[in-house]
Parts: sequence; structure tokens; C-alpha cells
Amino acid sequence: MRHRFRCAMRWGDMDAYGHVNNVVYLSYLEEARVDMLFHLGAAQGAKALTEGVLVARHEIDYKRPLVYHPRGVDIDLWVGAIKGASFEIRYEVHDGDVLFARAASLLVPYDLAAGRPRRVSPEERAFLERYVEAG
Amino acid sequence: MRHRFRCAMRWGDMDAYGHVNNVVYLSYLEEARVDMLFHLGAAQGAKALTEGVLVARHEIDYKRPLVYHPRGVDIDLWVGAIKGASFEIRYEVHDGDVLFARAASLLVPYDLAAGRPRRVSPEERAFLERYVEAG
Amino acid sequence: MRHRFRCAMRWGDMDAYGHVNNVVYLSYLEEARVDMLFHLGAAQGAKALTEGVLVARHEIDYKRPLVYHPRGVDIDLWVGAIKGASFEIRYEVHDGDVLFARAASLLVPYDLAAGRPRRVSPEERAFLERYVEAG
Amino acid sequence: MRHRFRCAMRWGDMDAYGHVNNVVYLSYLEEARVDMLFHLGAAQGAKALTEGVLVARHEIDYKRPLVYHPRGVDIDLWVGAIKGASFEIRYEVHDGDVLFARAASLLVPYDLAAGRPRRVSPEERAFLERYVEAG
Repeated sequence: MRHRFRCAMRWGDMDAYGHVNNVVYLSYLEEARVDMLFHLGAAQGAKALTEGVLVARHEIDYKRPLVYHPRGVDIDLWVGAIKGASFEIRYEVHDGDVLFARAASLLVPYDLAAGRPRRVSPEERAFLERYVEAG
Repeated sequence: MRHRFRCAMRWGDMDAYGHVNNVVYLSYLEEARVDMLFHLGAAQGAKALTEGVLVARHEIDYKRPLVYHPRGVDIDLWVGAIKGASFEIRYEVHDGDVLFARAASLLVPYDLAAGRPRRVSPEERAFLERYVEAG
Repeated sequence: MRHRFRCAMRWGDMDAYGHVNNVVYLSYLEEARVDMLFHLGAAQGAKALTEGVLVARHEIDYKRPLVYHPRGVDIDLWVGAIKGASFEIRYEVHDGDVLFARAASLLVPYDLAAGRPRRVSPEERAFLERYVEAG
Repeated sequence: MRHRFRCAMRWGDMDAYGHVNNVVYLSYLEEARVDMLFHLGAAQGAKALTEGVLVARHEIDYKRPLVYHPRGVDIDLWVGAIKGASFEIRYEVHDGDVLFARAASLLVPYDLAAGRPRRVSPEERAFLERYVEAG
């Protein structure tokens, strides 16, 4: 199952080339992750994810230039592999049929109090498994 | 040969966790690329690179959290593969012996006037080849 | 008449103190201005404003700290004085009854082709006058 | 006495108009304040300022457009009025003789542990008084 997040764009996301800067796409992914992991996760019993998740890796392929428009862009996101102490989120940034980027992030649950990574809990696993998709 | 760029950090680069936000690392890479491709490239006969280079892909592995400090961080960058119409830049973000991230970008020379990708020119190839390194 | 713009917040708008950084408020004002001057203005016959408006001055009073939440914040904006070659936009950043900031900007229509400021046109004046309010 | 801070610019500070975005100037002021209040202040006996200062107000006048260049810009900053529970910092953003902006901020020492504003301490006052200038 994919989660869809409508991400507001800002005029200021554009750089001197008049396109949304490649760096800003990662902010869009961050907002989509926060929406899924923090809000949806907390509502579905995986509240601990709101208390700390480290980004261990990103990869992103830019498919075509994106120009600011007031209606924003959609981020579809779903879960790839879930391992013992990490999981993968995959994304598509698109507007209807037009694909702007594909991306993936490797995420690590983090125990803020102890200051170290921790394992994926059973509640988190149950939450994440609803969003597992191939591809 | 590697090019080293001393990247100024900003206090505002930190997020609510008190670390440099993972998105901001890509700004650091951008500044390092601009320094190498625009300034160094223009000085070494590859001026056309300043007129347009698209980012086709990034990948980045975060190795440890980075906290703002006024002395900035070093970005070492070098060239991976050079193909007909693209080339790869590889990076290490570090402060002395401490490695914060490794990254790579696939870049495509772009003809702004014609509005389309173009091939790597001989002058650009000569410039880039000085910085080719394995690894 | 006031124009209300619902501004999406981003988790990344917060700084290391866990509040929306004071700098980011100005991005919110920018998005609200773009919504009013570009989209609404173009729809109401003042299209030239989309082609260039310089910010000559900002002033902003912060009333209380703002923490990210997914529903965003409201920006109310209206027009203060309209002069021959400039006009003032005034703002309130709030969420229901809770006021986070009051601000004002002095704006100058700009002729991008000629590279210089220009006078407020009659169409622009007619558009702006609908939004004039005291206070 | 004025404090001068050399502020690194980033290519990404430019917006779609090809100028440093008006919002980003406030980031430059923030970096200059951090340099003066945190680093210089801590070295000169006013360490508590590093633990929390709220921005209560900014005003900024933009004098001419600023384009990214690798050498950065200078921020000169000095102290205006010092009151019981607030003080004013004034700034000029310039590059040699060329003035880009003048600005002022009203700052309030903040007790993070107690979660409320506090008075300027004698050590802070002694530090700030060295930088008081008219104008």
C-alpha cells in the first residue's frame, strides 16, 4: 500500500536556473516521511518513530525539471525491505502522470535518550508492513 | 587528484535534533561542485560548465551526526567515470580524520540556450580528467 | 479586505531550539505575497506584478514561538499605503486566535527588461486598492 | 566598536531572479550574530548568551541586489540601545564600499531551563557595551 502526501511547494524552492533546486527535493521527501512516520505512525501504534529516526542513506534519480506551481506535488511513498535495525522507504515525486524523481532512503530507529541506534520494535514492524511493496 | 573545498557551516543548518539536517549536506555538496566546476573549471578552460549542468542522480551515505561549528567542514571531491554525455563526481565530507558522509552525483552538461542535454566537450574532458580517481 | 493564505509548514523549518526559525517566517510571508500578488493579481488584471517586484524593506515583530504542526499557519495580508512607485503589504501570522507575528513589507514594482524600478500601473493600483486596510 | 564577520555565500542562496533572496539576508545576519554573541561573547565572559537569545523584532532595508560570488560578503555589526531585558544589534551588509542592506534586531535573553525571558546580566552588559555605537 502506498501513502500519498501532497507536498506544498514554495516559490523560494527555485534556484537561479528557475527550477526547484535538486537539494530541495530531499526536503519534500522529508516532509512526506514526517507525514507518514510521525503522524500516521503515531496514529497506528508506532509512536516511538516520532522520537528519533536517523537517515543512513539517500539515493535519488531526477527524471525531469520541476517548476514551482501553487498546487504542489504528490509524493507517493512505501516501504521496501524491513531489517532488524533499519528499514527502507521508497518514493516517487510526481504530478499526475508526470514523474519528477524516484528516490529511496535507508532509515535507522534511534534511541534519543541512550544516544544510539536501536532495533525496529514489533509495533513499528506491524505498522511498516502495511506499506511494504515491491519495486 | 582531489579538490578540497572548505565549506562554511551555518548555525541554521541544524534541525530540531540539534544536528546538521541530512538535506543540508546536499547543499554542502552543491557548494563544493560550484567551487570546482564553475570557478576552477572556468580558470582551466572548461568555462561552458558554468552555463549549465544538470544533476541526474545523487547518492549519499551518512556516517555520523554533524554538529555546527564555526570552522566549517572539508569536502573532498574528485571525478569518477566520464562518459559521452555525463560524468560522476564523488565526495567525502570530513573534518580532519572524522568522516561524516560519502556521496556521489551523476551530472549532465546542459545547453541552456537549446534547452537540452549535450555531450561533454574536449575542454571539459581535459579538465575533468585531472581529477579522476578510483574509489 | 484581507487575503488569507494557508501556509504549509515544514518540519525542517525548525531550528536547533525546536521552534520555527525566525528567518523562516520571512519565507512564509514570501509565499503569502506570491499567492496574493502573482496568482490573485494575475487573475484580477494586475499581471505585470508577476514579472518583478523588489522587496525594499521588511519589518517583523515576533509575538510568540511557533512550533511545526502539520496543519500549517494562516497568513492574513492586506495593503497599507500605495504610493507612486511603491506599496506596502502588512501581515499577521496566526493560527486561529493565536498571533505569532506581525510584519510589513515595502515593495517596488520592477521592470525586469529595463532593469529598473517602475511606477505602479493603474491596473495594479485598482487591484491593490481592494485590499487596502488601516492598521 | 564594530565587529566584522565575513559571511560565506552559497550559490543556492539565489532565487529564480538570479539574486540572493531577500529572506536569505536574515540568515546572514543570524550567522553574524552567532559569531559575535556565541563565540566572541563566550570568550569575553558573556557565556550565557549562547544558551538562548530570542529575536523579538527585525527590520531590514535592502539597498541593492546582491549576486552570489565566492568571496562572500561582510557583515558589520554593533550594539544599539541596551535595556533591562533586551538589547539591539545593528548591521550593515556590504562588500567594500558597496552597501547591500542595513538592518536592526531587537534581542531578548532567554532562560531555556525556566522557559521565559530574563534580564541582561552584568557580564553580558559589560560585553555588549564594548560594541555600542550610535547610528
